[in-house]
Amino acid sequence: MERLLVEPFYVMKVLERAKEIERSGEKVIHFEIGEPDLPVPRKVKEEAKKAIETCELRYTESVGILPLREAIAEYYEREYRVKAKPEQVIVTPGSSPGLLALLKVIGETLGEISYTDPGYPCYKNMIKFLSLKGRAVNVYPENEFKVKPQKVETPVLIVNSPSNPTGTVYTKEELRALSEKAFLVSDEIYHGLTYSGKAPSVLEVTGNAAVVNGFSKFFLMTGWRLGWLVVPEELVSDLTAILQNIVISPPTVSQIAAIRCFDQEVLEELRSNVEIFRKRRDVLLKGLKEIGFKIPAEPQGAFYIYADASRFTDDSYSFAFEVLEKAKVAITPGKDFGYNGTEKFVRFSFCTELSNIEEGLERLRRFLG
Amino acid sequence: MERLLVEPFYVMKVLERAKEIERSGEKVIHFEIGEPDLPVPRKVKEEAKKAIETCELRYTESVGILPLREAIAEYYEREYRVKAKPEQVIVTPGSSPGLLALLKVIGETLGEISYTDPGYPCYKNMIKFLSLKGRAVNVYPENEFKVKPQKVETPVLIVNSPSNPTGTVYTKEELRALSEKAFLVSDEIYHGLTYSGKAPSVLEVTGNAAVVNGFSKFFLMTGWRLGWLVVPEELVSDLTAILQNIVISPPTVSQIAAIRCFDQEVLEELRSNVEIFRKRRDVLLKGLKEIGFKIPAEPQGAFYIYADASRFTDDSYSFAFEVLEKAKVAITPGKDFGYNGTEKFVRFSFCTELSNIEEGLERLRRFLG
Repeated sequence: MERLLVEPFYVMKVLERAKEIERSGEKVIHFEIGEPDLPVPRKVKEEAKKAIETCELRYTESVGILPLREAIAEYYEREYRVKAKPEQVIVTPGSSPGLLALLKVIGETLGEISYTDPGYPCYKNMIKFLSLKGRAVNVYPENEFKVKPQKVETPVLIVNSPSNPTGTVYTKEELRALSEKAFLVSDEIYHGLTYSGKAPSVLEVTGNAAVVNGFSKFFLMTGWRLGWLVVPEELVSDLTAILQNIVISPPTVSQIAAIRCFDQEVLEELRSNVEIFRKRRDVLLKGLKEIGFKIPAEPQGAFYIYADASRFTDDSYSFAFEVLEKAKVAITPGKDFGYNGTEKFVRFSFCTELSNIEEGLERLRRFLG
Repeated sequence: MERLLVEPFYVMKVLERAKEIERSGEKVIHFEIGEPDLPVPRKVKEEAKKAIETCELRYTESVGILPLREAIAEYYEREYRVKAKPEQVIVTPGSSPGLLALLKVIGETLGEISYTDPGYPCYKNMIKFLSLKGRAVNVYPENEFKVKPQKVETPVLIVNSPSNPTGTVYTKEELRALSEKAFLVSDEIYHGLTYSGKAPSVLEVTGNAAVVNGFSKFFLMTGWRLGWLVVPEELVSDLTAILQNIVISPPTVSQIAAIRCFDQEVLEELRSNVEIFRKRRDVLLKGLKEIGFKIPAEPQGAFYIYADASRFTDDSYSFAFEVLEKAKVAITPGKDFGYNGTEKFVRFSFCTELSNIEEGLERLRRFLG
């Protein structure tokens, strides 16, 4: 594979090959994609259509329109019982550019940034993109892939709870202990999607931390490209200047439509989706274990199962392609999440309906059984 | 003013104060905003509404959907008679993140990047954000603010034609001479908005250059956040990996709708707007000269007039606020465009209707005359 400035997502190669197979007329079961498959609430869509009809969708403030910032701030009060001022809420074109701007400010002002291995690959890639100092902290199955406070040796730590790829959820006490060791950049993008009690926000334990969140997971609005940050007030002016320069402003129609996400009836519809994901998780978990995958940390949130495939392979990258070719099942190789034991692991997402999950399990059973 | 990691847009302070004045009930004439005020074509809006109604607007390929990349590639053939493969076209969430990714790849692989002073402020700010090496090249009124080839001493040069803030357009011969000295990153975002012959694309003189463009100026789709790059094929894999990491994908609804921009009837509607801008330019240019502003380079493109205000001030930043308070006319201080003589200059944009331009001139006449 050619050398690139930042690492690509290896799963894209799986996805590309899966699409080729589909074009040849065969059905592929998709466990590789981390994108919710449920429909965007009608009220959100109607609001978007109305906005397109009635206004010209000009640039907005770089940090987002005030009514949306207010709605998000109120949501923190209702959902987590924490006070956030609308001024601390910064709306971004997806959570990724928000995280990028935030890492720049935090890295330049506080110093080296730790992130977990395995973990979401963009953390290390963004740190590299920004020429900041970063450090991988290995996390292990025996601790549910959680960072232990005594392992934190840098002034900044990225925590992702619920986590991609493991579904790990940190308790409030664990977040507090970590927040005493480092400034936490808390990626809470999978909040709302939890299977045994709500995931606490870092803001419940400290005001001196930054939250990254967005509308692409619980709120289902992936291609609408809208995220947000909640940050200490002293970071706002730096983040504003950076976002002016690198993105100008978030998509206007998405901002107007997203306000509707916080209407009671829309929130209830979204919350009812969690039961759909829970059912899928339970079926997939049981099936994978029966087939012979080990699941050292059962996911408490998000929509992924990080499965130890060492009974079948010690090269999970090749294994992913073999499973795709032979069983027509697409999975994500552990390699996408770092270097720490990842050659033994693959990630299954449950963003596909139950009948597909059952068919996928049957295909794996036949191929691996 | 507090010290920030990257410089903010100073015009935002003008805009903020202008909004305060408006809230107190007074009318402000807006010459500060670089955002077209004409309506987005109906066909584009209808396509957007249909997309929202009929699909879930999921993530797309990081480099954009193929039909849009194809439409853009075809546009280069029709508009400039240059061949670009769809694979060389990369669709981005606004031109800014595209430029950011491009500068990273070019800066890391080729080295130091030159940009003009005065010039669009994001160039130097992005270079700083990315911790790359950058160098300002001073440009002067006596050369229409154009870079002379003998002044290019770095392997990379950003050219902006038509230019913000001066409206300068480079000829094909000038682009060729510059392209022989450095790899050109050619910001062509104001293409389509020219008043004395089309602006040539850098691709008409060399294939070894990169184009930055987008849907926010000629195509009027500012808040839709959609841009594109056209790059040599060897840059595509690096750019793809970077864009996967920092933006995931451009807004889906904007991509689907933007395909309609290249329909013949929509292009004709957009082309007819140029006459509206030309008329505004002519009136504003004449009026400003009568009042006593010097316009050393009359704009051949874009929608800005870069005016020498030295008859009135040697501190154009304070001058901008004075004009706002006393005449209720908002203009952009030269400071936003660099350090080279910018304290004498202000920028007038003509993104407001003719009656406002006439009223603004009258107000300035009364205050300065």
